Amino acid sequence: MTNYFTEEASVEAVNGRMASDIDPRVREVMTLLVKHLHAFIKEAKVSQQEWETAIRFLTETGKICSQERQEFILLSDTLGVSMLVDAINNRRQPGATENTVLGPFHVAGAPRVAMGDRITLDGKGESCVFEGTVVDLDEHPIEGAIIDVWSDNAEGFYDVQQPDIQPKWNNRGTFVTGSDGRYSFVGIKPVSYPIPADGPVGQMLKHLGRHPYRPAHMHYIVTAAGFQKLVTHTFVGDDNYLSSDAVFGVKATLIAPYERVLGGGTVWRSPFDFVLNPL
Amino acid sequence: MTNYFTEEASVEAVNGRMASDIDPRVREVMTLLVKHLHAFIKEAKVSQQEWETAIRFLTETGKICSQERQEFILLSDTLGVSMLVDAINNRRQPGATENTVLGPFHVAGAPRVAMGDRITLDGKGESCVFEGTVVDLDEHPIEGAIIDVWSDNAEGFYDVQQPDIQPKWNNRGTFVTGSDGRYSFVGIKPVSYPIPADGPVGQMLKHLGRHPYRPAHMHYIVTAAGFQKLVTHTFVGDDNYLSSDAVFGVKATLIAPYERVLGGGTVWRSPFDFVLNPL
Ligand SMILES: [Fe+2]
Ligand SMILES: [Fe+2]
Repeated sequence: MTNYFTEEASVEAVNGRMASDIDPRVREVMTLLVKHLHAFIKEAKVSQQEWETAIRFLTETGKICSQERQEFILLSDTLGVSMLVDAINNRRQPGATENTVLGPFHVAGAPRVAMGDRITLDGKGESCVFEGTVVDLDEHPIEGAIIDVWSDNAEGFYDVQQPDIQPKWNNRGTFVTGSDGRYSFVGIKPVSYPIPADGPVGQMLKHLGRHPYRPAHMHYIVTAAGFQKLVTHTFVGDDNYLSSDAVFGVKATLIAPYERVLGGGTVWRSPFDFVLNPL
Repeated sequence: MTNYFTEEASVEAVNGRMASDIDPRVREVMTLLVKHLHAFIKEAKVSQQEWETAIRFLTETGKICSQERQEFILLSDTLGVSMLVDAINNRRQPGATENTVLGPFHVAGAPRVAMGDRITLDGKGESCVFEGTVVDLDEHPIEGAIIDVWSDNAEGFYDVQQPDIQPKWNNRGTFVTGSDGRYSFVGIKPVSYPIPADGPVGQMLKHLGRHPYRPAHMHYIVTAAGFQKLVTHTFVGDDNYLSSDAVFGVKATLIAPYERVLGGGTVWRSPFDFVLNPL
């Protein structure tokens, strides 16, 4: 019997076309993709003109992608897809520090910095001491944990967004904990910044009545032998955009205190402990 | 109350962010898109690596798009999305000729040809007389119906795919019916051809164990005052790919007879009547 395409049996027509000897995971994912994609089109009764708008949107999203710009990741981020994939793949025991999105501005190979050192090299922004302990679920300190940190500068840009401005590696560094599990470094109190909004995703946000800002945050990747990799931020608690992060990265447990320091060279202190989940 | 993102309430977190004063149809479509997109990711438990593959796939699909190549439409076609949108928007009364996909090779402004004339200008391929009547649901002939036809050449290419080869408008033409509703023209028996398969969509088809071929077909757009626009093909009934069209365009009612003609200048005759649905 021939299964020609019909509106009613559209999913079966498409999925029935797959060969029997393909990779089982490819079959599983594509079967579900077609099922949900067709369900969306049917429930929304997508018009021919709306379909054309979607094709044009995807084409323009592709066109703006470059070595420096990943508009499809922005699209994933702003639709909550990146956070959802992150959540599904990083379920943790209660008490373990939660993950959030990596974001597009991580750079592997940031310089190793001595504990307590300054990572802000341009002298701009409000100085802030970041400190705490890396511990396991029983609050035992973890020795040899690698902490990779990065933030924007006082103007809201990551160094990679301003490749012509020196010094390199501004507001980036990696640290390794000692037997007390402690970490500490001097950076700046980060500032909120907009995701790139001059492309199709920015247009989409405008149509949805959404702003493109992310609340101020410090990025962390914390790794240690025997523990799940932790990719997260800490957020500045009094930020205006905390409840409307353009990429949905905020979790209540990731909001860190920022305390004013009286006297001394720094202005702020932000304590935060990282609790790693065992593998 | 702040709705931070959680795996459980991911849809509400994203859709709750839309402003209240946006276009209601934008709200409706985007709300459903997020709902079904998140449902897909949750049911498939998409891994971080699979997400990266998807981002790379979309990026490469964007990169290959050009003035001459629309890979996102190919993607829509091969996932049955184009046919589904067409089906939803062109529901007809029983007896009316069914729609199928427009395809990427239609060119507006094909020359007006006299009834019975030849549209094949390069002298290649097996000649075929196409003829029939344009009628309404009561089988009354429709006068003044405009029939726009196009097919590939004997090698399986549309003229726009070979812009350097003359003559222009090979295997294309438009006709207008008289009071008898009759149409007739001489073309060639079309041949099956592959959709462009050297890009990301071709790779996807390979992973799904699917070939890129379309069964041989003649394209038609039939318009007449007071009737729904008909965008369709007629298919050659003995084609090898009839039950496995790469873009799911085949409908049982669109398979046309191809009869061998003995004697005279042509080799084949393909009769087909078009039944238009009133507006
Ligand atoms: Fe960031
Ligand atoms: Fe075609």
